[in-house]
Amino acid sequence: MSTREQVEALLTKVAGGVNTLYDSDFLLTWERSRPELELVLSLAEALQQMVRAKLPTRVFDGRLGMSIFRDKSTRTRYAFRSGCSLLGLNTEELSEEHSQIAHGETVRETAAMISFLSEVVGIRDDQFLGEGHAYMKEVGASLKESYEAGVLPQRTTVVNLQCDLDHPTQSLSDLRHLMDEYGGLEALRGKKLAMTWAYSPSYGKPLSVPQGIVGLMSRFGMDVVLAHPEGYELEDEPLAAARRFSGESGGSFSVAHSMEEAFEGADIIYPKSWAPARVMRERTRLLRAGEGDALDALEKDCLAQNAQHKAWEADEKKLALTREGEALYMHCLPADISGVSCERGEVTEGVFERYRLKTYAEAAHKPYIIAAMILATRFTDPGQRLLQGLPR
Amino acid sequence: MSTREQVEALLTKVAGGVNTLYDSDFLLTWERSRPELELVLSLAEALQQMVRAKLPTRVFDGRLGMSIFRDKSTRTRYAFRSGCSLLGLNTEELSEEHSQIAHGETVRETAAMISFLSEVVGIRDDQFLGEGHAYMKEVGASLKESYEAGVLPQRTTVVNLQCDLDHPTQSLSDLRHLMDEYGGLEALRGKKLAMTWAYSPSYGKPLSVPQGIVGLMSRFGMDVVLAHPEGYELEDEPLAAARRFSGESGGSFSVAHSMEEAFEGADIIYPKSWAPARVMRERTRLLRAGEGDALDALEKDCLAQNAQHKAWEADEKKLALTREGEALYMHCLPADISGVSCERGEVTEGVFERYRLKTYAEAAHKPYIIAAMILATRFTDPGQRLLQGLPR
Amino acid sequence: MSTREQVEALLTKVAGGVNTLYDSDFLLTWERSRPELELVLSLAEALQQMVRAKLPTRVFDGRLGMSIFRDKSTRTRYAFRSGCSLLGLNTEELSEEHSQIAHGETVRETAAMISFLSEVVGIRDDQFLGEGHAYMKEVGASLKESYEAGVLPQRTTVVNLQCDLDHPTQSLSDLRHLMDEYGGLEALRGKKLAMTWAYSPSYGKPLSVPQGIVGLMSRFGMDVVLAHPEGYELEDEPLAAARRFSGESGGSFSVAHSMEEAFEGADIIYPKSWAPARVMRERTRLLRAGEGDALDALEKDCLAQNAQHKAWEADEKKLALTREGEALYMHCLPADISGVSCERGEVTEGVFERYRLKTYAEAAHKPYIIAAMILATRFTDPGQRLLQGLPR
Repeated sequence: MSTREQVEALLTKVAGGVNTLYDSDFLLTWERSRPELELVLSLAEALQQMVRAKLPTRVFDGRLGMSIFRDKSTRTRYAFRSGCSLLGLNTEELSEEHSQIAHGETVRETAAMISFLSEVVGIRDDQFLGEGHAYMKEVGASLKESYEAGVLPQRTTVVNLQCDLDHPTQSLSDLRHLMDEYGGLEALRGKKLAMTWAYSPSYGKPLSVPQGIVGLMSRFGMDVVLAHPEGYELEDEPLAAARRFSGESGGSFSVAHSMEEAFEGADIIYPKSWAPARVMRERTRLLRAGEGDALDALEKDCLAQNAQHKAWEADEKKLALTREGEALYMHCLPADISGVSCERGEVTEGVFERYRLKTYAEAAHKPYIIAAMILATRFTDPGQRLLQGLPR
Repeated sequence: MSTREQVEALLTKVAGGVNTLYDSDFLLTWERSRPELELVLSLAEALQQMVRAKLPTRVFDGRLGMSIFRDKSTRTRYAFRSGCSLLGLNTEELSEEHSQIAHGETVRETAAMISFLSEVVGIRDDQFLGEGHAYMKEVGASLKESYEAGVLPQRTTVVNLQCDLDHPTQSLSDLRHLMDEYGGLEALRGKKLAMTWAYSPSYGKPLSVPQGIVGLMSRFGMDVVLAHPEGYELEDEPLAAARRFSGESGGSFSVAHSMEEAFEGADIIYPKSWAPARVMRERTRLLRAGEGDALDALEKDCLAQNAQHKAWEADEKKLALTREGEALYMHCLPADISGVSCERGEVTEGVFERYRLKTYAEAAHKPYIIAAMILATRFTDPGQRLLQGLPR
Repeated sequence: MSTREQVEALLTKVAGGVNTLYDSDFLLTWERSRPELELVLSLAEALQQMVRAKLPTRVFDGRLGMSIFRDKSTRTRYAFRSGCSLLGLNTEELSEEHSQIAHGETVRETAAMISFLSEVVGIRDDQFLGEGHAYMKEVGASLKESYEAGVLPQRTTVVNLQCDLDHPTQSLSDLRHLMDEYGGLEALRGKKLAMTWAYSPSYGKPLSVPQGIVGLMSRFGMDVVLAHPEGYELEDEPLAAARRFSGESGGSFSVAHSMEEAFEGADIIYPKSWAPARVMRERTRLLRAGEGDALDALEKDCLAQNAQHKAWEADEKKLALTREGEALYMHCLPADISGVSCERGEVTEGVFERYRLKTYAEAAHKPYIIAAMILATRFTDPGQRLLQGLPR
């Protein structure tokens, strides 16, 4: 099959169906059905092939994709901008200077003011546990209200570019990478994936990546193992989702307390640092209260606690425990590489280097996933819409 | 009539005429003829309907819209960017770090350097009374010179996104809102509009909104009443224009000194804070002289003066004085809402909430007004140009 | 000939040839062959005429042009953005906060992350002698690696927007200006060009402009004279290139030690300040070492040294020495104009004013040169590609 024929096959498969993502916000993978996720994955795959075959992907003209980032961002900004551009959207960014998240009238009004000609608002808000997801829901509700009142000519939708609970553009990109590596979703059944904490000399890394990974990968019949030192617990909601999904999908979900145990026989390893949910909650409270001294003390304590777990490093010895000693290493990047970006970190230079270009390929899916989410929330039949644009 | 037919009717009406806005700068509504204003209004209305009907509005390809903002801006930046995008223009922003406005060679050179492939330069410069409009004229003259010398392939035009004298994109958006509310320009004849000062706990709000409103609304046979406490005078030029226009249009223009008097029998109310022209002039002088202590004293005095006028709040009791107790409330947003964004402000929560979504609809016109100004200053026959782009 | 016919003639001349710039980085003019430079010049000329004739120049859709600027930039940012827009590329900027240039894995990873859907990365890095060019080569090598590994769907190319060694978009724009002034490349043979140092009250102006000018203009049979006070030496590499090229092209290259000597009989004068290479090298070392006091001392010394050479000012008296007293004055802008932008500077107000609009026309070539470099590095047959887009 030519690439063109593959694209047509992929799009024809998803065209004509009922699209329950239309005019809704894409916030958490675990509140989405498996057909909804598969629609996004298929559209992303089709878009990536269309780019390689230089087929046209523009479906918008003269409309905007807005973004709101609560902190500095290079990679996410690029991924959003390039995903939007692929569909013909210009982008604009709302600068939010204040760490205090807006509420009520300020959110409602701002949401309307930046959406008159916007198809989508991408939001990244992962800094404050307990707030990011709530803020995105509030923005979505405001957009719905303004659309229903006739103020907005379209139901501008929200796409979660990372919140305190989930990181769906990352986890779905990671899943697309696994589909490429193993040959589709069905091939993932029975594979063992180890999502493990890893040591990092920095503090306050968000929880959304491990939460997003276990909440998503558990839906495809994989044996998902989450591993971390005691005290580095994640939020309950995504873990509950992972337990429920693993039962439904014929896979399993378990928690281990050593990297070695998690790596044992694993097909896929994802060693990555994060901060304890407990610490992140306290951090949010102290930031809100403006207690600078207590914040410094919290950081110091947390770093001291981290330092006790320097052995949680993905090295050759631990990699040897995985299936045939060559599990697929994954990371959302940038990784803390021992001897490269820090003295001691999440992964040794040798292990990272072996998989370096594969981690780039993993990241390469993100613009397509973002574009696929926009397509799926903005068109009743996105597959048909892309098919229409193909030259005869 | 279908939307498509309405669009064609609107555009056919304005197509084929002599367009005296072509290759000129849009700086002040009161230096523009009524046919010129009606062209902009018709184009804006057509564009808005074209968006709702998903009709193509791209008329440029590969050209830029530049913006220069003298202060932080979310709403204006969005409105300019989305208006430009609608027409197919990319945007770029000139960062002006320094509060000292450039003059002479610096303006001439910069104007040329950012205009080689720019169709329009949108400028917001409302901070310094006596300077914003002068700066825009200087930029316009520089662009004209470079165009006539063959340096620029087009006469890049200037659009005033708010200056010290006028705020034409706001006042024309407000007028479009009134046309929608009442059914066209003619329906505004005899309506009473109360543009009144209102209390705000902040200092230094620009004068361009009230000046722009009285300078524009007086041209359509309305009874325009300006109200403010003693000492909160506006600049002379727009008031003189309002007096002249109200005579010509068969309406009236008067100044009242209480909110109650202005609201009495009003069809439309626009309660909004501003700083006295006298204070803003002094503020400009002190900023230029670098007299920080005197500036602080001026702010303190001005806030104390404001505090004597807390009764200038649009509340239910005053609203009851208006025609049938239900005048249309207008605001350029964001409003200072008592008990919401401040303890005591321009409007009570109850009054604002009743009109909240209408104020959003009022703001929604701005991207179309900006796009209409660009069309009108960049095409000899903008109506025909939009008609050409309609699919057969 | 109509403009359209001229465009077709220009493009037909370069279409069909072997394009050795394809999939490579454009970093230094002196590592490029004369046919490669002529391809860029012809494409730039064609694009400029296409803009004037309103012919379509879009060759990309939904792809990005990335930029990396190491310092604040208005003109270069505009030129890059407008050049990209002309071809249908959206742009995005990578913010590099830190003065410390990234190396190794950070460069490789970042290069990939900002290039998934990018056709080009434009980089300006002229602050640290010995580093800018090296950084660009590292980015280019990283992009090549990621492309060859299949991570990038295209070989994203690097365009040098100014480095420590060369400033090819400036020097080629200057050359386009000379072609317009004299009627093509052949007409430049035998012309005397004086690239001379000039006094400026500021410190640390980069060397890339004079280096780029002598390294490029020496290739077209011109008599290139470089003049500066003792101690203001440039880097060796571009001077060696100038000597080599002048021999090959039938022109000459010499160094003078007074502005008067350089101006004598000159057809073209380019008076422009720069810092001694020796000082810039020391500055890089001190910045890297974080030696603030030594840096201040260096700046003070350098300014004191500059002050001894205030006579290096392009004034009427020196201009009278040039061919018929009316050599073409050139500058990359902004110029330090005596009595306008500074008390005493590079050029007197009278001399500058006479050539002011010509310096704007000189700058106007840059967006087209940048677009031409992108075309030449991204298409095997860019002339044919532009021809294809012409309406029948």
